[in-house]
Amino acid sequence: MTTYAKKDFPVSEIRRFLEPGPIVLVSSAWKDETNIMTMGWHMVMEFQPSLVGCYIWNANHSFDMIRKSRECVINVPTVELGAQVAGIGNCSGRDVDKFSRFKLTAAPGEKVNAPLIEECYANFECRLIDSSLIRKYSLFVLEVVKARAPVSPKYPQTLHYRGDGRFMISGPTVGRYRKWFRPEML
Amino acid sequence: MTTYAKKDFPVSEIRRFLEPGPIVLVSSAWKDETNIMTMGWHMVMEFQPSLVGCYIWNANHSFDMIRKSRECVINVPTVELGAQVAGIGNCSGRDVDKFSRFKLTAAPGEKVNAPLIEECYANFECRLIDSSLIRKYSLFVLEVVKARAPVSPKYPQTLHYRGDGRFMISGPTVGRYRKWFRPEML
Repeated sequence: MTTYAKKDFPVSEIRRFLEPGPIVLVSSAWKDETNIMTMGWHMVMEFQPSLVGCYIWNANHSFDMIRKSRECVINVPTVELGAQVAGIGNCSGRDVDKFSRFKLTAAPGEKVNAPLIEECYANFECRLIDSSLIRKYSLFVLEVVKARAPVSPKYPQTLHYRGDGRFMISGPTVGRYRKWFRPEML
Repeated sequence: MTTYAKKDFPVSEIRRFLEPGPIVLVSSAWKDETNIMTMGWHMVMEFQPSLVGCYIWNANHSFDMIRKSRECVINVPTVELGAQVAGIGNCSGRDVDKFSRFKLTAAPGEKVNAPLIEECYANFECRLIDSSLIRKYSLFVLEVVKARAPVSPKYPQTLHYRGDGRFMISGPTVGRYRKWFRPEML
């Protein structure tokens, strides 16, 4: 398994990893318990503060853990973790200790009590800053308060869920359209 | 330019195209005017009804057109339209007729007055069903009321924005993790 040498990454620039739409692993902690869930429904909502909107279904065991602790970590897995991603999405934290079952390392967060998943490419520590849309839309508005990512590789090879058990695997990142951008749009 | 033979596609299954997170083109109409904008901040929010949450900045010319008409079309462009996508995102409908400037074909919608972009792989006709989050979060909650996509290719090669003028191009779609899915999760 690849080990990443991660550094602090500007929270206002996490679109580089989230805007392309990868499936992510969300880790949380509440009382003596930790958990991990897969999440495909999320969107960047603001650069500063760094906001991410996330749909978390109330049947997920993580739903109450994140709602009550008001914290979580968004972890970006690479294709290397494909089997674990599928496995994590197909069992419940009610029955299973997912860190143990999937042999993942829980690393301490700096600003939240929720654990980071060490094996993931990037880790975004988040605080729940608006819970008012949870009841109507299962929408958690999170602020990324701390981000870590490796310097190399610059872009991870990520998994993007299409439903029906199928994933798109990210291809190359290209700058060939950059010449059509106005300088202030870069 | 590839021409797609599109058919009706179930609105409850559009996650196949949107959940992987492509940049999309949003077309709209208001009074005698049409417009197109690029959009990278969107998320699936529900299967039935088929809901999509979209962030549209109030400085975009499309903002008021969609807010007032309460309709738009989400069009999924392929990598073939990369230069047009970059161009559309770097000029304003205040100054330019984008269909004309970028040589795109406006096709009539069936359920909305906003035009479809014929050259795009898929077209999702949308109605704005909740405008209450626009002021606080620029969040438009849209219901997809009609979808069209080709039978072949089954998966489009899409563009996924990373910021800074760079796009990730989608790679292959794989079923190799499908064996870890529980039947009811497929």
